[in-house]
Amino acid sequence: MKNLFDNIKTPTLLLDKEKCIANISSMAEKAKRNNLIFRPHFKTHQSLEIGNWFKDFGIEKITVSSLQMGEYFANNGWNDITVALPINIREIERINQLAGRIRLNVLVESVEAAKFLSSNLTSKINYFIKIDSGYHRTGVDPENAKLISEIIDASSKNSLLKFAGFLSHAGHSYKCRGIEELEFVHSSSKILMMNLRQEFNSLNPVISIGDTPCCSVANDFSGIDEIRPGNFVFYDYTQHLIGSCSLDKIAVVMACPIVAKHSSRNEIVIYGGSHHFSKESVKLNNGLTGYGLVVNLENDGWTFFEEECHIISLSQEHGIIHAPEKVFNKYGIGDLFGIIPSHSCLTAIAMKSYLTLEGMVLDHCAGSM
Amino acid sequence: MKNLFDNIKTPTLLLDKEKCIANISSMAEKAKRNNLIFRPHFKTHQSLEIGNWFKDFGIEKITVSSLQMGEYFANNGWNDITVALPINIREIERINQLAGRIRLNVLVESVEAAKFLSSNLTSKINYFIKIDSGYHRTGVDPENAKLISEIIDASSKNSLLKFAGFLSHAGHSYKCRGIEELEFVHSSSKILMMNLRQEFNSLNPVISIGDTPCCSVANDFSGIDEIRPGNFVFYDYTQHLIGSCSLDKIAVVMACPIVAKHSSRNEIVIYGGSHHFSKESVKLNNGLTGYGLVVNLENDGWTFFEEECHIISLSQEHGIIHAPEKVFNKYGIGDLFGIIPSHSCLTAIAMKSYLTLEGMVLDHCAGSM
Repeated sequence: MKNLFDNIKTPTLLLDKEKCIANISSMAEKAKRNNLIFRPHFKTHQSLEIGNWFKDFGIEKITVSSLQMGEYFANNGWNDITVALPINIREIERINQLAGRIRLNVLVESVEAAKFLSSNLTSKINYFIKIDSGYHRTGVDPENAKLISEIIDASSKNSLLKFAGFLSHAGHSYKCRGIEELEFVHSSSKILMMNLRQEFNSLNPVISIGDTPCCSVANDFSGIDEIRPGNFVFYDYTQHLIGSCSLDKIAVVMACPIVAKHSSRNEIVIYGGSHHFSKESVKLNNGLTGYGLVVNLENDGWTFFEEECHIISLSQEHGIIHAPEKVFNKYGIGDLFGIIPSHSCLTAIAMKSYLTLEGMVLDHCAGSM
Repeated sequence: MKNLFDNIKTPTLLLDKEKCIANISSMAEKAKRNNLIFRPHFKTHQSLEIGNWFKDFGIEKITVSSLQMGEYFANNGWNDITVALPINIREIERINQLAGRIRLNVLVESVEAAKFLSSNLTSKINYFIKIDSGYHRTGVDPENAKLISEIIDASSKNSLLKFAGFLSHAGHSYKCRGIEELEFVHSSSKILMMNLRQEFNSLNPVISIGDTPCCSVANDFSGIDEIRPGNFVFYDYTQHLIGSCSLDKIAVVMACPIVAKHSSRNEIVIYGGSHHFSKESVKLNNGLTGYGLVVNLENDGWTFFEEECHIISLSQEHGIIHAPEKVFNKYGIGDLFGIIPSHSCLTAIAMKSYLTLEGMVLDHCAGSM
C-alpha cells in the first residue's frame, strides 16, 4: 500500500472504492425502502467501471447530462437513459440515432421544442416535462397548467413522442445549510410535483426528482416515483457543508505534491490548481472562501486534521494552503497532501480518471474524447 | 461560411485566427522593439498548431506550466522550454529525461529543492530562482539575499545544474483596473528585479518577467531581459476588465446552443456550463458576478451587443443569461449565442480543441491525454 502514494508524481484523483460502494448501497436501499425507481445521475463519476458497481445493486436506469455521455454508457450496455438537460434541438440527428438503440428519455419545457421534435423525430422517444420546483434555473412553472397542456398537445402530433411524466431538480437545496432547511426545500418541491400529478392524473405521469442533498437527508418520498441523485456517489466538501453527508463518507481525494513553503505566512504551495480542481469554491463556516479541505494521506487512505486547513486560493497550476503551525511543520517539499474537493463532479471531469486505493485506474468519459 | 455555425451542434470553442495572429505579432514586435527575449507562455493555448504560428515570428523559446506540456511541445520540435512552476521533485525521472533531450529551464525557490536537484540530476539543466515580486503566491522574497545565496550555493554542488537568473510573475496585476494601476505594479516589480540584478551582477543573471496585463500595457522594459506573457494570445473578458485589451482583440468565443427561454425573468438558458467554461467569474462593473460576455455570432465572426449581456450563473451543463429585452426577443430555442469567456485558458483546457472561423479543428494538449 505504501507504494501507491510513493508512485504518485503529479496531481492524482484518489477513489476509496469501499466508501463509494457504501454510498451507492445506502442510496439504493433508501430507494428500495421507499418503493422508488432509482435512476442515478452518472454525470458525477462518468465512469463505465463505477457504473458497473451500480449494476450489482440492480440498477438498470440512469441519468446523464449530455448525449455524448449517454452514448458512452449506451456503448457499455446501459439501455434506459434520461438526458437531464432541456433538449438541444441542434443535436436531433444524434438524438434519433441514440433513440433508435435504447430507451431514451429527454426533457422538454417549451412548445417550440415539442413542435420541433414532433416534426423531426424518426425514433421512439419518451419525454419528461421539466418542472421548475423552486430553483428557477430552468423548467416550466408548475402552476402554468396552460403551458404544460400546450406542450403535451404539440407533442401528441407525433406518435413516436411519448409523454413520460414530470421531472424536477431542486437545485436550491445547494443553498441550504442543515437538515431543517433541506427538509423544507424537499417538502415544498414535493407538494408542487404532487399537485401536478393530481392535475394530470389521467396521463399517469411518472414523478421524478433528483438532487443529492434532499435525497440524502429526506425520508418522506410519498408521491414520488423516481429519484436521480448523482453527487452522492462521491460526495464532496460542498455536500458536507450543506449537511448531506459526514466527512467520512466522501469517497474522493486529490493527492497533490507540495512544491513550496512560506513560513512567514504559514502557507504551503501545492502542484494542483484550477486545471485540476476546476474553480468551484465554498463559503467556509468562518466566512472565508475555500477551494478544498486538506487531509493527511496515510497508508490505507486519508485522515482528518484536528484543525481544519483549506486551499485558500487557486491559480491554473498552483494551490495555496494556509496551514496551522502543526501541519505546516510536519510536511516538507516533495510530500503529498490530500485534498477533498469542493466539487467532486468538476474535479473528476478535470482529472479524467481515478486511482483506487487498491491501485486500479478507472476510466472517465472526459478521458475518452 | 454560413455552414460553419450551422454545423455546430454542441458547445464549441471558436478561434479567430486573424485576431490571434495579430495578438502574437503585436507582442512579438513589442519584445523586439525593447530588445527582449520573447518566451511566450504556452499554457493558454496548449496547441501545437498555434505554437507553429509563433514560429513565423522567430520565436524559439517557450514557457509551459507542466512537464507533460513541456513534453507535448518538445515532441513537436521545441527545444528551449521553461517549466514555470516551482520544481516538483517527485517528477525527477521525467525531468532528467526531458533535460536529456532539450534545453530545459526549471524554477527553484528553496534550499531543499536545490539540494535534491544537486543529488539527483543526471542531465544538464538551467534553473531560475523564482522571485516573489509582490504577488505573494510563491517565490523568494527579493530582499532575502541570504536565502538566494544559499540556494545558489546548494545548487553549485552539481555542475549539471546551472544558474540562469531570476524569474517573477507579477500576478497581482490581475487585481488592477486600468493602465495607471498596471504601470504601478509593473514598475514596482521591475525595481525589485533590477535590484537583484545589481546584487548578483557577477553571476550575469537573466531577468525574466511575465504577466499578460503588464506586458500588454507597459512600455518601459529597461533592466528586463525576457518576457513570458501567455494569455495575450487570446485575451478574455477578465483581461478586458483589467485594461489589457480592447474587446475586439479577444480571439476566442464559445458558441453555445440556446435550450430554453424564460420571459418572466428575461433569462435565456444555454447548453454550456462549468463543464465547458470551468468556473472562473469576474466582478462586473455593476458589481454583479459574470461568467462570460454574450456576443452575436454572424457569418464572419462575432459582433457586440449595444447593451452588455452576461452569463449570470453556471452549473455543470447550463449557463443562465440575463438578456436585455431586444436580445431576448431576437433569439429562439436552437439558436447559437457566442460567449467571450471570463478566462480563456481554463475554457480551452475544458474544451480540448478549437474550431477556427475557417473551419479548421486545432489540437489542445488536454485532448491528447
